[in-house]
This record gives sequence, C-alpha cells and structure tokens, in this order.
Amino acid sequence: MTPPRLALVPGEPAGVGPELCVRLLQRPRDYDLVGFADPRSLRAAADALGLPLTLLPPDRPSRAPGELALVEIPNPVHPAFGTPEPGNAAAVIQALLDSAQGCLDGRFDGVVTGPVHKAVINAGGIAYTGTTELLANQAGREVVMMLANDIVRVALATTHLPLRAVADAIEAGALSRTLRTVDAALRHDFGIARPRIAVLGLNPHAGEAGHLGMEEIDVIEPVMAALRAEGLDLIGPLPADTAFLPAKLQGFDAVLAMYHDQGLPVLKYSGFERAVNLTLGLPYPRVAVDHGTALDLAGRGLADPSSLIAAADTCARIARTRRNLPGGTP
Amino acid sequence: MTPPRLALVPGEPAGVGPELCVRLLQRPRDYDLVGFADPRSLRAAADALGLPLTLLPPDRPSRAPGELALVEIPNPVHPAFGTPEPGNAAAVIQALLDSAQGCLDGRFDGVVTGPVHKAVINAGGIAYTGTTELLANQAGREVVMMLANDIVRVALATTHLPLRAVADAIEAGALSRTLRTVDAALRHDFGIARPRIAVLGLNPHAGEAGHLGMEEIDVIEPVMAALRAEGLDLIGPLPADTAFLPAKLQGFDAVLAMYHDQGLPVLKYSGFERAVNLTLGLPYPRVAVDHGTALDLAGRGLADPSSLIAAADTCARIARTRRNLPGGTP
Repeated sequence: MTPPRLALVPGEPAGVGPELCVRLLQRPRDYDLVGFADPRSLRAAADALGLPLTLLPPDRPSRAPGELALVEIPNPVHPAFGTPEPGNAAAVIQALLDSAQGCLDGRFDGVVTGPVHKAVINAGGIAYTGTTELLANQAGREVVMMLANDIVRVALATTHLPLRAVADAIEAGALSRTLRTVDAALRHDFGIARPRIAVLGLNPHAGEAGHLGMEEIDVIEPVMAALRAEGLDLIGPLPADTAFLPAKLQGFDAVLAMYHDQGLPVLKYSGFERAVNLTLGLPYPRVAVDHGTALDLAGRGLADPSSLIAAADTCARIARTRRNLPGGTP
Repeated sequence: MTPPRLALVPGEPAGVGPELCVRLLQRPRDYDLVGFADPRSLRAAADALGLPLTLLPPDRPSRAPGELALVEIPNPVHPAFGTPEPGNAAAVIQALLDSAQGCLDGRFDGVVTGPVHKAVINAGGIAYTGTTELLANQAGREVVMMLANDIVRVALATTHLPLRAVADAIEAGALSRTLRTVDAALRHDFGIARPRIAVLGLNPHAGEAGHLGMEEIDVIEPVMAALRAEGLDLIGPLPADTAFLPAKLQGFDAVLAMYHDQGLPVLKYSGFERAVNLTLGLPYPRVAVDHGTALDLAGRGLADPSSLIAAADTCARIARTRRNLPGGTP
C-alpha cells in the first residue's frame, strides 16, 4: 500500500507559485510530491523566504518536510520575482503537460498546480486559455470545473464566456454530460454514496414559471427529469439567490451553477483562502489553487499558502478514495 | 421635533405579513407606525400568536408596544392562513398605494412593506410585477433596487430580466442614472459624506480586457469615467467573484451589480434574516422585507420577524437622516 504520489507544478516561475510550493513542503505529509520545475526558481524562492529545501532525483521517496523529488524543466530565462518572461512560456506549459502525461501513464496519482499567467503564455506565442482546457485537450476528455472550500462545492455548467453568450450555451446534451460528470466525481472522488446536487436556474428566481425566461422549462427541467429517472438525486432548478442560504447548503453535496458569476461569489466570500479548483472528468485527479500569480507579492513571503496546501491535501485524499486506500473518504 | 411617522403595510393578508407586523409592534420603538390593513387580519394574527394588539384611530400617536394606529383597508374576503384570495388583490394594492400617497402628500415619513404574493394579485385581475415597480409608477420616478444587511449593500443595475436580456439592458444612460441614484441615496439616506461605490463588470473577470466581453470597455468604463469627473467615487469595473471578499467589502459603501444573480447570492448568504429591500429614488424612503409570503408558515408563529424589524428600523433611520434629526446617521 504505497501512499499517493502526486505531481506538483508551481506554474509561473516569477509569481508566488514557487514560494507557495516551498511553504507547502515544510509541512508533514503522508503522500509523495514530485515537482515539475526549474530547480533555480524553487531555490530562489526558498532562499528569499529563508526556508530549507532539498531537491532529490525524480524517482525518490519525497515525503519528508523540506524535501522534493524533482523532474527538472529548465526555464530559458531565470526571471526576477514579479517579472514574468514570455520566453519561459513553453517551459511552463511543458511542466503542466509532462506532469499530466505522467498521470495518464500511471506514474503519478494526480497533479497539483499553482497559478499560471495567461497573458504571458500568450505573449510567448502559445495559445492558452487556461490549464483546465489544456489538460482536457491533452486527455481528450470533456471536463467540468468545480471550485470547493469547506462550506460548499460549486460546479459550473459554463465557465469563461461573455455573459451574452451564456443563455445559448445552456444546451441539453452538454448539461446532461456535466451533471453526470459531477455526480460521478462526488461518488468516486469524494466517496459520497448518493450525492445530492442542487441545480440552479439560469434566470432570476429560476425563471419564475416562465415569467422570467424559458430555459428552465425548455432545457434544464427536462434534462433533470431524464437524469432523475437514471437515479441521480437532483434538486431544483433553484433560484440562485436563496440556494446558497447556509441552512440549504447543508442539504447539498454540490451546487451546479449555470455560469461563472452566479456560482463563484458565494464560494469566494465564504472561504477564499482554503478554496481549490478541481478539474472533474480527467482520468486522474487534478486540483489547482483558486488564485492568480500575485506578481506583486512574489518573493516576499507574504502570499498565503492555504489554497495550495488545501489543493495538495484534496488531491491526495481523492487519490486514496480512487484506490480505496485508508484516509480517502472524507 | 416629532419622531418619524411611518406607514406599515402587511402585504398579503393570508401570508406571514400580518403576524410579522404584530411581532414588530411588541418591541419598544421611537417612531410612530400607522398600519394600512384590514383590522380582522391583524387581529387574527395576534390571536393566533397570543400577542396583545390595540388598534387606534389613524391620527393617534402610535409608539407604545402592542399599539398600532390604523387606516382601515377592508378585504372583501377574510382569508384563512395560507390561502390567499384573488378577491383581495385590489385591497392589497390599495393599501400600498394609499400609504405611499400619504408619503407623497407629506403625511408620513416613509413606508415599510411586507411580502405580496405576485401570482394572486395577477389572478385577481391586476397587472402587478412588484411593489417596487408599482410605487415607481405612482411617483413617476425611475428607481433603483438595493438590498442590504449588516455586511453589504447591493444595488442592481437590472432586476427581473431573463438572463439573455441582461447584456443589452446595460446601457449608458440608464447605468449613469442608476449610479447617480445610488450615490445620492448613500449621501442623503445613509449620511455618508463621500460614498465609495464598487461597480461590478457584466462579464466574468470583468471582461478580462475585452477577452470575455466588450461591455466593460464599451459601456461601463466610459460611464464611470464621466461620473468620476463629476466627483463620484467609483471603484471598478471589478470581477464579481472577488469583489465580495470580506476584506474588499470593507472598502465599499455599496456594490452595484449588473444583474440579479450576480449580486444577491452573497447578500443572502451573508445575512438573509436581517436583509432588507430598499427602493432608492422615490421622494420618500421605502423599505421592504427581503422574503416572500411564506404561506406554509402563516398563523403558526414560526416566521422570523428580523427582516421586518430591520426594515422598520432602517426606514426610521433614513427618515431621521433626511430630516437631520438625531439618530439618523449610522
């Protein structure tokens, strides 16, 4: 019964990712972490924060505080803290793809990722809309983004669309696949035998019986009825403004929001620091931080490592659940 | 220096409105309340809850616990708890219009309203989309809906629109008038000398420099620039998911959300019980409860009066602020 072995990718080397990884490594852990990074950026972060760091060959056990097995992905330019270099874009993307390929090949049990700077990657000549999309394309899977903290899990039916494009994007086939993916993840990744999923309406008051929009009647309710007939436990469609009342949240294992700004404000208000970003539907668990590169904080030891710590712990717990190891189910 | 004299309208007589009024009246208060209702529905609620109620002529002082000056608006049908009668629709609407007319005529300093059952009013043959719209039409004013609790004030640029209609409704003239109304209300109703208003973007990540929508660049930012030149203190356009982080909220006196489900989930999550619904832009303060008729709870003494109590206290405080009376400014 070997413990889970997770890939750890700091993301943008000029941001807070490397120092958050160094801080994560100082804690006792019962899973292996294998970094995918340039050793110089990790050492620079450790030096700046005055924290110990021992880098090991990639195949070594890597559970002791301060130690990290490392797959070296050299950056062509060693950046100053806070100044991302477009010349490193390919290396940043390679670290993500190599670590994920390791999961696809069965060498790792999951991948934990820090923040990537979207504009710098594109400035470096690589078309990149987000790590979620990158890993979905690599694996050939349709995925669902879920953000979670200690209070609530929020999955999104659509993600980064202009608001005026959202209504037309709520389509029966995609919504059905999304709900199946969320249900499967709650069962297999979170160990919930009979997940209860709250489904929000698209329109205010969930359409108020057609007075404030027809998508609930035309699309959402028929999809829910068909999936209920298959055994999924779905509640709604619910008005978004009252679905998140604390007393109601206790009855749901997850909330499916129809779009970004409907679901994420409460998630972030209720516990930003410990929030993580999960990609559901990949062959392996992938958990990311729920914040950006925070370039202004980089190298100063001021960035809060709570989200990365929660991401690593969550990824390890999911890996255990998938393998039926002790310590998996919450 | 007479204290504020507020109109109190229970709303739907078969819902929880009458009993919430009776419970509100039991508390000590330093303002007069004048009811607009059928005395039978108030007495039925008082009897059901075993609480004292003394009804007085409409022109009498009305500040002692258990007492209420009353303008009688008879209901044609005395309804059972939980069973609204369409035959009472006209009386419910008349109570709202008469109390508001009393404010327009200077006889009252504000109006406090309980929940109305939209479908029953329409079933009674009266086209009614909401009390906010009813009172705006009566006064001939363009108004703004604001919901507030102890944590945050959220104003809405659009209210009860299907989501697919929202983007086209974000128009420069209306947005500018909305922001002026919110700014004026914060100054004159809440006594804030230099209000700071956070303005949310329409699109996720506030459009991310045009990558996720153009309305921020085409509409919202130009409106904000023009109003800043007039002295308004506006922050944004901000991404909705992080604008509500508790540390950020401390820097804002109000948040303007572009639409219903962008702004209200956090408001309700963070303090539903004490939330109130304000109509900004009327010649008088109007404050309502932030919940519905709760027909299933009516007559059972189970409904929480916190929102109505907060509404009455808020209305009285605004009335004092407008008249420069002590106890106004928070």
